Amino acid sequence: MSLWEKNLLDIEPYVAGEQPGNDKIIKLNANENPYPPSPMAEKALRELSFTELKKYPDANGAPIIRALAKRNELDEKNVFVGNGSDDVLALAFRAFFNSKKPILYPDITYSFYPVWCDLLKIPYKLCAVDDDFRIDPKDYYEENGGVVIANPNAPTSIAEGRDFIVDILEHNKDCVVIVDEAYADFAPYSAVELIKQYDNLLVTQTFSKSRSLAGMRVGMAFGSEKLISCLRAVKDSYNSYPLDSAAQAAACASVEDEVYFRHTVLKVMQTRDETAAKLRGMGFSVLDSATNFLFATHPDRTAEEIFEYLKENGVYVRYFKKPRIDNYLRITVGTDEQMNTMCELLTKLITASS
Amino acid sequence: MSLWEKNLLDIEPYVAGEQPGNDKIIKLNANENPYPPSPMAEKALRELSFTELKKYPDANGAPIIRALAKRNELDEKNVFVGNGSDDVLALAFRAFFNSKKPILYPDITYSFYPVWCDLLKIPYKLCAVDDDFRIDPKDYYEENGGVVIANPNAPTSIAEGRDFIVDILEHNKDCVVIVDEAYADFAPYSAVELIKQYDNLLVTQTFSKSRSLAGMRVGMAFGSEKLISCLRAVKDSYNSYPLDSAAQAAACASVEDEVYFRHTVLKVMQTRDETAAKLRGMGFSVLDSATNFLFATHPDRTAEEIFEYLKENGVYVRYFKKPRIDNYLRITVGTDEQMNTMCELLTKLITASS
Repeated sequence: MSLWEKNLLDIEPYVAGEQPGNDKIIKLNANENPYPPSPMAEKALRELSFTELKKYPDANGAPIIRALAKRNELDEKNVFVGNGSDDVLALAFRAFFNSKKPILYPDITYSFYPVWCDLLKIPYKLCAVDDDFRIDPKDYYEENGGVVIANPNAPTSIAEGRDFIVDILEHNKDCVVIVDEAYADFAPYSAVELIKQYDNLLVTQTFSKSRSLAGMRVGMAFGSEKLISCLRAVKDSYNSYPLDSAAQAAACASVEDEVYFRHTVLKVMQTRDETAAKLRGMGFSVLDSATNFLFATHPDRTAEEIFEYLKENGVYVRYFKKPRIDNYLRITVGTDEQMNTMCELLTKLITASS
Repeated sequence: MSLWEKNLLDIEPYVAGEQPGNDKIIKLNANENPYPPSPMAEKALRELSFTELKKYPDANGAPIIRALAKRNELDEKNVFVGNGSDDVLALAFRAFFNSKKPILYPDITYSFYPVWCDLLKIPYKLCAVDDDFRIDPKDYYEENGGVVIANPNAPTSIAEGRDFIVDILEHNKDCVVIVDEAYADFAPYSAVELIKQYDNLLVTQTFSKSRSLAGMRVGMAFGSEKLISCLRAVKDSYNSYPLDSAAQAAACASVEDEVYFRHTVLKVMQTRDETAAKLRGMGFSVLDSATNFLFATHPDRTAEEIFEYLKENGVYVRYFKKPRIDNYLRITVGTDEQMNTMCELLTKLITASS
């Protein structure tokens, strides 16, 4: 090994989920929205002044921040945008978790949290969810360097309500609490309203799920002026432009099209609930989902077996070979037609085995 | 101060250059290209499948990496892309500079280097450029944790050749050497050819200057497989997608349009050399530029005075109130028409004072 290699950062490369090249594949493995983005976002992108791309984008993301502030009845000082919520969350970990005490988050949750902790040398402690995959707020009463709660949680799909979040906040006034709301638009409750009361609360959201803009990489955070200005300083010092001009234009128009947003979110929720009912009819145990995916297990067939069977038949779902959840499947809610195809395949499998 | 505020990262927010909202302003303060991006990039953006934006982008940036590898006669394993070269450079600092010894770079150079060092807690030592703003390679012979050379350098506009870079590399085999080539497409020499010989060399470039895509935020790096795989691992662990789908499409098409690229770069270089000659005719001392900007000073008028005068007359150039360079202006090369307007204004000012 050369001497210079000793100073390379030693980090395990992340392995992403499969991205089949074949268009005939029904892709239910990345929690993408089955519907296209708002037609207003398309119009904004089509009308983007191409020659202006020679110039740097708006350095503060001002138009999209204005649109998000207005939509959420907040001040612009309470809104931050970044390149997807992964970017926003990683920056928040960097900006807020500088204590020597461990940060706390559930053992079953978004798999990037430990990766960022390792990368940024942040100590952390996992709090086990219970046998029903529920988070116990009491686990977060102990002294810590910060708290991260995905609500709804992933890959469990379970959402907690206002009382739960307030309980966590009331017991954590000396650290920053991040509520990761990647899926909250499909859930009954969002904690954004609490940022006015708790200036140590940061709520993150994304355009990749409910707004069908995964391809544009836009995420955002809501919080007190103090938290947001700290996030901005860290982001600016790292990279002076939050989003490219095309992403800003598309995201901005999407926020302004509330009708389309509500319509597609509602449609996904309806399909989700109908699919959950069908799966339960086949003997699956399906957790109550407040997201755009279902987390399900079957008593007669292993999750891995079902995963392989669906894949052979052109339906990609997600299977995590990890402790506690290795007999569950995470199934993204697609169109009614996609869900029907999947349910027909599953009926065949389940009937064949009974 | 609340207890949680004690764990916020303490960092000075970066203050960006002025971005006048007025379209009549001649904007020569951000080293943007005066010409639009390649028409092929426009076509790619216009033909982008809008509905596909609901899906995550290509996780590895494969098409753009393929195009860049082909264009530079390299293997895909030697190419990395990120959200602008600021993103690429910050990741490289994070990935490669983990020694306790200071990294070395010139005192007059790109202003983000010390910011990233502070953010990432990397010790550094400045090596003073000489009175002609030239970098002395011997300053980089001492033991260090890494070397960063912007070539051509900014804001001086001076380029060094192959012998200079080889000299630095021959004396720095135990650390990673980054050559930041944001402006190299306007210069006679690029060190990309050396990555096959020196596996500790990383060369970074950008689509923001020579390719007129500042609004799309695309930067790249070339290096040995070892360096690139380390960069990828760090990037992936932080944010699993390198670029949004629109940026990938536009950048990819731009790389494939070599004719347009050469044509606009040559035009900028011609305008640059003509403008430098005119400025010298007015008594300006102008450094020999191998970039898309000029670095100039005048014996009779202070840079600050000229800066304010031009600004009042609708021409924005860049002035840095910093030691050693506070009597210089950094003037981006615009169109011939823009340069003529500026030169006419300057002639008036200089004539009035003589």
